[in-house]
Amino acid sequence: MVKIGIYGASGYTGLELVRILLGHPQAEIVFATSETYAGRTLNDIFPCGIELELIHAAEADPREVDAVFTCLPHTTAMETIGRIHRRGLKIIDLSADFRFRDPAAYRQWYGVDHLIPELLSKSAYGLPELFREQIKGAEIVGNPGCYPTTLLLAVGPLAAEGWLAGAETVIVDSKSGVSGAGRKASLATHYVEIDEDILPYKLGRSHRHVGEMETILGSLAGRELKVAFSPQLAPFSRGILSTIYLSSTGRSAAEVAGLLAGCYEAEPFVSVLPDGRAAQLGFVRYNNRCALGVHEVAGTGIVLITSAIDNLIKGAAGAAVQNFNIMFDFAETAGLDAGSGRI
Amino acid sequence: MVKIGIYGASGYTGLELVRILLGHPQAEIVFATSETYAGRTLNDIFPCGIELELIHAAEADPREVDAVFTCLPHTTAMETIGRIHRRGLKIIDLSADFRFRDPAAYRQWYGVDHLIPELLSKSAYGLPELFREQIKGAEIVGNPGCYPTTLLLAVGPLAAEGWLAGAETVIVDSKSGVSGAGRKASLATHYVEIDEDILPYKLGRSHRHVGEMETILGSLAGRELKVAFSPQLAPFSRGILSTIYLSSTGRSAAEVAGLLAGCYEAEPFVSVLPDGRAAQLGFVRYNNRCALGVHEVAGTGIVLITSAIDNLIKGAAGAAVQNFNIMFDFAETAGLDAGSGRI
Amino acid sequence: MVKIGIYGASGYTGLELVRILLGHPQAEIVFATSETYAGRTLNDIFPCGIELELIHAAEADPREVDAVFTCLPHTTAMETIGRIHRRGLKIIDLSADFRFRDPAAYRQWYGVDHLIPELLSKSAYGLPELFREQIKGAEIVGNPGCYPTTLLLAVGPLAAEGWLAGAETVIVDSKSGVSGAGRKASLATHYVEIDEDILPYKLGRSHRHVGEMETILGSLAGRELKVAFSPQLAPFSRGILSTIYLSSTGRSAAEVAGLLAGCYEAEPFVSVLPDGRAAQLGFVRYNNRCALGVHEVAGTGIVLITSAIDNLIKGAAGAAVQNFNIMFDFAETAGLDAGSGRI
Amino acid sequence: MVKIGIYGASGYTGLELVRILLGHPQAEIVFATSETYAGRTLNDIFPCGIELELIHAAEADPREVDAVFTCLPHTTAMETIGRIHRRGLKIIDLSADFRFRDPAAYRQWYGVDHLIPELLSKSAYGLPELFREQIKGAEIVGNPGCYPTTLLLAVGPLAAEGWLAGAETVIVDSKSGVSGAGRKASLATHYVEIDEDILPYKLGRSHRHVGEMETILGSLAGRELKVAFSPQLAPFSRGILSTIYLSSTGRSAAEVAGLLAGCYEAEPFVSVLPDGRAAQLGFVRYNNRCALGVHEVAGTGIVLITSAIDNLIKGAAGAAVQNFNIMFDFAETAGLDAGSGRI
Repeated sequence: MVKIGIYGASGYTGLELVRILLGHPQAEIVFATSETYAGRTLNDIFPCGIELELIHAAEADPREVDAVFTCLPHTTAMETIGRIHRRGLKIIDLSADFRFRDPAAYRQWYGVDHLIPELLSKSAYGLPELFREQIKGAEIVGNPGCYPTTLLLAVGPLAAEGWLAGAETVIVDSKSGVSGAGRKASLATHYVEIDEDILPYKLGRSHRHVGEMETILGSLAGRELKVAFSPQLAPFSRGILSTIYLSSTGRSAAEVAGLLAGCYEAEPFVSVLPDGRAAQLGFVRYNNRCALGVHEVAGTGIVLITSAIDNLIKGAAGAAVQNFNIMFDFAETAGLDAGSGRI
Repeated sequence: MVKIGIYGASGYTGLELVRILLGHPQAEIVFATSETYAGRTLNDIFPCGIELELIHAAEADPREVDAVFTCLPHTTAMETIGRIHRRGLKIIDLSADFRFRDPAAYRQWYGVDHLIPELLSKSAYGLPELFREQIKGAEIVGNPGCYPTTLLLAVGPLAAEGWLAGAETVIVDSKSGVSGAGRKASLATHYVEIDEDILPYKLGRSHRHVGEMETILGSLAGRELKVAFSPQLAPFSRGILSTIYLSSTGRSAAEVAGLLAGCYEAEPFVSVLPDGRAAQLGFVRYNNRCALGVHEVAGTGIVLITSAIDNLIKGAAGAAVQNFNIMFDFAETAGLDAGSGRI
Repeated sequence: MVKIGIYGASGYTGLELVRILLGHPQAEIVFATSETYAGRTLNDIFPCGIELELIHAAEADPREVDAVFTCLPHTTAMETIGRIHRRGLKIIDLSADFRFRDPAAYRQWYGVDHLIPELLSKSAYGLPELFREQIKGAEIVGNPGCYPTTLLLAVGPLAAEGWLAGAETVIVDSKSGVSGAGRKASLATHYVEIDEDILPYKLGRSHRHVGEMETILGSLAGRELKVAFSPQLAPFSRGILSTIYLSSTGRSAAEVAGLLAGCYEAEPFVSVLPDGRAAQLGFVRYNNRCALGVHEVAGTGIVLITSAIDNLIKGAAGAAVQNFNIMFDFAETAGLDAGSGRI
Repeated sequence: MVKIGIYGASGYTGLELVRILLGHPQAEIVFATSETYAGRTLNDIFPCGIELELIHAAEADPREVDAVFTCLPHTTAMETIGRIHRRGLKIIDLSADFRFRDPAAYRQWYGVDHLIPELLSKSAYGLPELFREQIKGAEIVGNPGCYPTTLLLAVGPLAAEGWLAGAETVIVDSKSGVSGAGRKASLATHYVEIDEDILPYKLGRSHRHVGEMETILGSLAGRELKVAFSPQLAPFSRGILSTIYLSSTGRSAAEVAGLLAGCYEAEPFVSVLPDGRAAQLGFVRYNNRCALGVHEVAGTGIVLITSAIDNLIKGAAGAAVQNFNIMFDFAETAGLDAGSGRI
């Protein structure tokens, strides 16, 4: 059994991570921290029935564990990681702090200097389907952002294949459930403000995930690509559906679908839907899958991809456990639901 | 035109009140205050298009207006009212501060001494259908709570008629939209916490509205009555549906429906539904009506009443304007939608 | 491996049942029928990824299986069961056709004569926590209705203990998700008709589940009891929350909670919440548990119980598999999620 | 008072139209038809309180009225119009039957021959802000589709100005409330199928509204333009939010916003939001406005427009009454809410 510590277990992602790890055959949670709720159990703060006690980070002893998951805000995550990292400790960071290899890019998008750039350069970007080899040997993995996951699984293989050679800008129109905004009390997540509405925010290229998308996509394509990204908060709790518009691939939808189907044939967690069927949240709700639909926009040269994930699982806690499995050489599906969608 | 000041215009009730008054043929808003948003317009803080500027209460001059609406938290309301009241100024208070005539009852349920008990005793309880005469002459009207409105319109006439003589406890099972919790950022109103759930809270006789319900019902019945009250937060924005169980009336549902229909025959804002049709929010959404359905529970002696209002209108801002109309001897429907429900 | 046939697999309950059985270590689905969708797979009709092919009932061979689940409308279920039953075949019926032992009661509430009354009298009512012994030896189990499950788990032990001796009527105010109405296209389940509303229907004692509630409760109490039942369709997909009002038990909430906690101490699927915490759907969503909260209504003699289940699992498919486990002497939790609630 | 007949009054659009016309100072409803619900009132079929009786179309006498609104399915609408039209009768058709001037285009997109092409060529496309002059003199007006309204108000002025000269394809990503699918009972509109999901459908250029969009946009631009259109059914009842991506305009967002602001300066029902604020449904819910936000996608040459309407009002019944007002030379805002959005 791998001994595990979780920093920041009282958010939506933390809860999901605890749930998954409690069902993981090779994992044992040694501690779970929360500054806000230390001294209480998860069941005190969620209607979940899980009697795991939360402690202050200061009370946790990272030397007692083999692996750490950090579900902390960016900046806070790298502070904690800077303090606890040691040779042999595997760290999966769910914040943005290890999503870039280049400290300058991190600084550009997050506005602060990276505290431990020497670790940054040795970390891996934790999207298993595209960077499995790097993840295997890494001591620190930066778990991808939820929005970038929907884009990169859909378009990454095309970029790597050179099929985006003629494109300048990829358009990503994303609708996210409200759990993506975190569990902090705020007017922006008030039920009444979202109910019966759909709220575009940080349009254009102003959302920080644009940096992550462009960096990874550019590195795969070997050239600069821009992402026109429109995040929208939609009236549901979980899930992201992105509609992605690709001009100038010079390929038909069938060719794109064929490439993706080939790439993901052996992947347990990515499904290319047949016959132009559109992705929807039903396929991926509560599981670790990404569903991809590929669609022709006849007569325009545009190929449309619909991409859906559960933002808390494939977009966060599930992907983190998938990375954990790779880092420890367990079956990649251990503890994870590769299964079917749910109503 | 009656000149109007609004204290506390930046909540859901305040917005609704502004909307109604902007369409009122005899009202002119002179000022609207907000401590949080002073210096900004309503359109800055809601997607509403209303360019009304909000000011600090300290900048408002109450001598410039003929009537004041206070949409402030309890305690704050009576502080403001204590400061601004003067002979001739009509005040409609939407907080709980003037819902009791007896300072001891106020203290019992709200835990603080009333600051201006001499005004309390001269105020009226602002449920027009039951207390119209008192409202007419009052300088201060305490606008009813939203939950009590659903109960009192349903059961008040029975209490007044002596039909609750055999009853000890009235059971009120209420489902409220989230706007009832106000616009303050809080975890309790986070979209994800409410979505796909229904949340009982303050069960038994612990919600403060129990005091208001029991006081008014008792005064109508001429005897003590208890209310077993189960408020539940439900996944919609507006409206309250209460199911009310009456044992021991010794009357059939048809008799109860007949009594209510007679009482409300000339009332523009209360509808007794025919043939045991159940109340639902569709009937009352965005209007100032209360819909009542009366139902037999065969063989049990229980009569069930379903009662629905829009909590922000008949349960708050609409009732306030109805009281305003009565106090100024305007048509009681002036500015108010007595009309049909909406999908 | 027990070989299993499912009749009626294309509804919400059927899908849930298939999901559970696919994860069951001792079950193997041999056939699944659907008259509407025969020839297609579950994945064709739900976004679920399950490539199980549906066949016509006429094409299914019941002699190939050891156990059958019938997810058919009432009447249709007993027709099918009349045709396929044989010594040794275990049948779990999710319709209402085997919820009564007495054909006269069935006729009274369902308006038709029972087709196979000789099997009815040998069947068991499939609420494991209260009727486990009868289920063990039965060849046919009538799986309980979803609403009755919320009531009977909450109140059954009190009835059995004689604590309802003074009561005449139990009040059950239930809010159900829309999946409870089935998957048939109808105006009543149209998104727009339900959204932002809550819809009481079949009030009083007119819903058929009243018959089931009163029959089982009466048999446990050894005397006639009436149930005033108010079902309400609420704007969510899954789950039922019932608020249950008990007068005249002569016991405090603490005594009631103590009795229930004692009864269910060893039960994996019923949780009595501590400290008067209210049941909510979060506790039971997607698992096979029933959560019970017990609440004092001070000064009234009323005890309030809040009772929550996932209507498709503990209220249907999960309970059915629990019964299957008992009938085959498997671990009662096999294949079932006894675990935690989910956001 | 203008005498009015409504064909097809029992759908969501019909109900909305009746509501608006009941509040219109110069309109009097003489008859309202429904084949399904003839003999019943609107209040029988909606919780609306409107006691307007519905009759069979065969019982309606079109010679008694001055104006007719047809809220019928396409094909049925032109059959009815072919039967009732006469010199002087003003007809506003809310189906697709009069949205094209060219019968060949109608045939291409709707798959049937137009029954009365001679009337088609004399009809006007009823988008007041762009085609007011044509509407004034027309006897038949084809009310625009809901999705095209969001696009054409956003992009029409640019097309007319020649700013789309470099563009080949306009991308329109639209999220629609479920009322847009009509009130017919169907699995596609079942609450459970849509709740917590977002459903792309008829992607690419396969939705019929593409024909309308491309025809009108092409006529304004004086050249062929293609529309890549992604309609998505979202979990709310009312409203459409479209995000529209324009490449190659050669203009900045500020220039585009300036052009639109100039065009719509005197328009009561179109608002260009300031400072790149995004459109959302809150601005337009229950009123006849279109809200437009204009956004820079820095460094890409793409201008993004967010466009929101209430699909049942500005996208249907409200636009129809606006057309009616123009045709009868009434104030264009008569009976219509030009006002503020609502929570």
